[in-house]
This record gives sequence, structure tokens and C-alpha cells, in this order.
Amino acid sequence: MPVVQVHLKAGRTVDEKRQLVTRITDALVDVCDSNRDRVHVIIDEVTEESWGRGGKLLSEQDGAPPGTS
Amino acid sequence: MPVVQVHLKAGRTVDEKRQLVTRITDALVDVCDSNRDRVHVIIDEVTEESWGRGGKLLSEQDGAPPGTS
Amino acid sequence: MPVVQVHLKAGRTVDEKRQLVTRITDALVDVCDSNRDRVHVIIDEVTEESWGRGGKLLSEQDGAPPGTS
Amino acid sequence: MPVVQVHLKAGRTVDEKRQLVTRITDALVDVCDSNRDRVHVIIDEVTEESWGRGGKLLSEQDGAPPGTS
Amino acid sequence: MPVVQVHLKAGRTVDEKRQLVTRITDALVDVCDSNRDRVHVIIDEVTEESWGRGGKLLSEQDGAPPGTS
Amino acid sequence: MPVVQVHLKAGRTVDEKRQLVTRITDALVDVCDSNRDRVHVIIDEVTEESWGRGGKLLSEQDGAPPGTS
Repeated sequence: MPVVQVHLKAGRTVDEKRQLVTRITDALVDVCDSNRDRVHVIIDEVTEESWGRGGKLLSEQDGAPPGTS
Repeated sequence: MPVVQVHLKAGRTVDEKRQLVTRITDALVDVCDSNRDRVHVIIDEVTEESWGRGGKLLSEQDGAPPGTS
Repeated sequence: MPVVQVHLKAGRTVDEKRQLVTRITDALVDVCDSNRDRVHVIIDEVTEESWGRGGKLLSEQDGAPPGTS
Repeated sequence: MPVVQVHLKAGRTVDEKRQLVTRITDALVDVCDSNRDRVHVIIDEVTEESWGRGGKLLSEQDGAPPGTS
Repeated sequence: MPVVQVHLKAGRTVDEKRQLVTRITDALVDVCDSNRDRVHVIIDEVTEESWGRGGKLLSEQDGAPPGTS
Repeated sequence: MPVVQVHLKAGRTVDEKRQLVTRITDALVDVCDSNRDRVHVIIDEVTEESWGRGGKLLSEQDGAPPGTS
């Protein structure tokens, strides 16, 4: 029955979304014995101008190194 | 005072949104005696590539028959 | 397929929740031709100390008249 | 650690978003002693056709005067 | 950077929540190359009287067989 | 018109909530010229057993120093 909402930085490929949905669904089925057919995963992509962390927009963070997405 | 958020598959017309807003608002006014002017309904349309059910993206579900939207 | 989240002031009875769920589901089935069995409605009750409007907590609003819930 | 989601009518400039993020983050750091670096603010812009108030879409409200956004 | 919100039927143990958090975080790190330390997972447990499916509260669904949670 | 939802670690006092509501509302009025009376702020307190960061529940993070809430 679970409903999962994922907020992510925009720019994921369809294949990445497909993998995310599968793995998050698997987790709920395995851990909570959820009915697979009733697990919903909604991916909400957010642009860097609409997401702030530490008081700054992501688009204005200082030199983000790899692996900080 | 209620705030309602509706996640829907993308592709609704303005008229469908108008009807949804009216009927959901009516429900809250009738059932909960909410102040009509303070009922908010936010419709969030989600593409088929960003919604998973049963571990698969909606865009990849097997032959969805009519009435499964 | 829709998922609806309703934020309401705490204190609804089970019967009020039942009516809300039925009427919101009906709206989605009638207006959007949604598959009834796949409509989810999640009711999230919020206390008056955790909801602000107009810069004040609901618990501290000036003399709220009837019908302002 | 806080995560803040802001639903706003679409049409904000990047500068307005930047100011919102800064001020909301400041509020959480000052009031709750939150770790600044861990405050997330996600801005979700909603079109006037997808937001209802008082049973009507924002795009169809009667003559909205200034300051009603 | 992702923020994940999971709506679940109430009644999970701490161990189940721990496993869910780990597996959902792993999925985001593996699939999206997210910075592990910045992945947030918020679990929101919902009672059966506050969740409707198919127009009925979960507390009033007809004989739910095992594996339908 | 804005609707703000704040996810916070549980344990805030009413006075902290009052201050948060006031300051977040002020930010929206000042930055976006929002109608003060229509700004909603909903505070959703989350227990340490229901919030994960970095793949671990907050209740199990290693020695959190001051200012990490």
C-alpha cells in the first residue's frame, strides 16, 4: 500500500528512474511484505534554481565536487 | 483550512481540473464544515516516466486497458 | 492511479474520514475516469499548534467564528 | 536537518527564490538551532490552472487585487 | 541530495524502518550517484482510519488476505 | 497563497513553532508580496526513528555534536 515520493535534482534518465522504482519497490516488498502491485513511487524532479541547501540555491553552491548530486 | 494535494497522471484538461477542484472543495465544506474560501487544492501532474507502480514505470506497464488511468 | 493527500485540522471522526474518502474518490472516478480501486486518499491531521495561517498558529487566532475550521 | 517544501504560484524569479531560501534557512537556524548546511528548501511552483481556492481555479478567481498572489 | 518521503501503514518496527532507510539510500547512491550523507528518508506512518483505497478506509476493506499491507 | 510544509525533528516547543510560522510568513510576504492572510505553514514533526540520513536512522547516528539538529 505504500506511497513513496522522491525529490531529486532534475536530469535523471528514464533508465535511472526505472531502476529507482524497481529497487525502492523491492525494498518495500522485502522489508514490509507490501503487496508489490500496490507500491507507488512518484519521482519529482527539482531544478537547481528551485532547491536550496545551506541557505543557497543548488545552482549557486561553491564548486560542487563529483558525487555531490 | 484544509490543504489538498492531488498527484495525477499528466494530461488533464483545464475543465477536468476545474471540476476536481469544485468537487473536492464541496466534499470538505459538506463533511468537515470547512470555510469554503480557505480550502486549497493543488494538482500535481506526473508524467508516465516519473511514476512507478508494481515496480514498473507507468510508461512500461503491460497493455493498460481503458479505465486504468 | 491518483494519490491524494489531505491536510486537515485534527479532530475528525472516523465517519467524517469515511465520507471524505468516498467523495474524493468519486470525484476522481467521475472526472478523470480513474480506476476506483487505485485511488488512494491519505488524511494527515495537524494540530492547532502545528499549523500557522497569516503568521499565527491556529491555536492563537483571534476569535474564530463558526465555520472557520 | 529540516526539509521545507514551499508551494507557490509559478512565476518567481531566481532572485526571489534565492531570498526565500536564505530567509527560511535563517529562520530554522535561529529558532531551532538547525545545522545550516543540512537545511533543505524545495520550491514547487504551481500554475494557476492547477491550484484551486474556494472551489475555483486561481486562473478563474474574480478580479484579484494587488497583493493577493 | 535526494529527499524521500514514504507513506506506510502504521505499525512498522524500528528494525524495519532501519532496513528501509538503508535500502532506499543504497538505491539512490547506486543509481543516481547521490552523496550518501545527503540522502534523507522520512517515514510517515498512517493509521488505517486515515487511509482510503478504492473509496473505503483501510480499516473497512473486505477481508484483506496476507501480503496486502 | 503559498503553502509551506516543514519537516522537523520532533520536540519543538509551541514558542519555537510560533516563531517559525511568523518568520516564514514574513519571508513570503516580503519576498513574494504574498497576501499575509493566505500564507499557510504546516509543521510536521518526525521522530528520530522515522528519519534516516546517510542510510541510518537519526536515532542511531554516531555522536551527534551540538547544532546538528
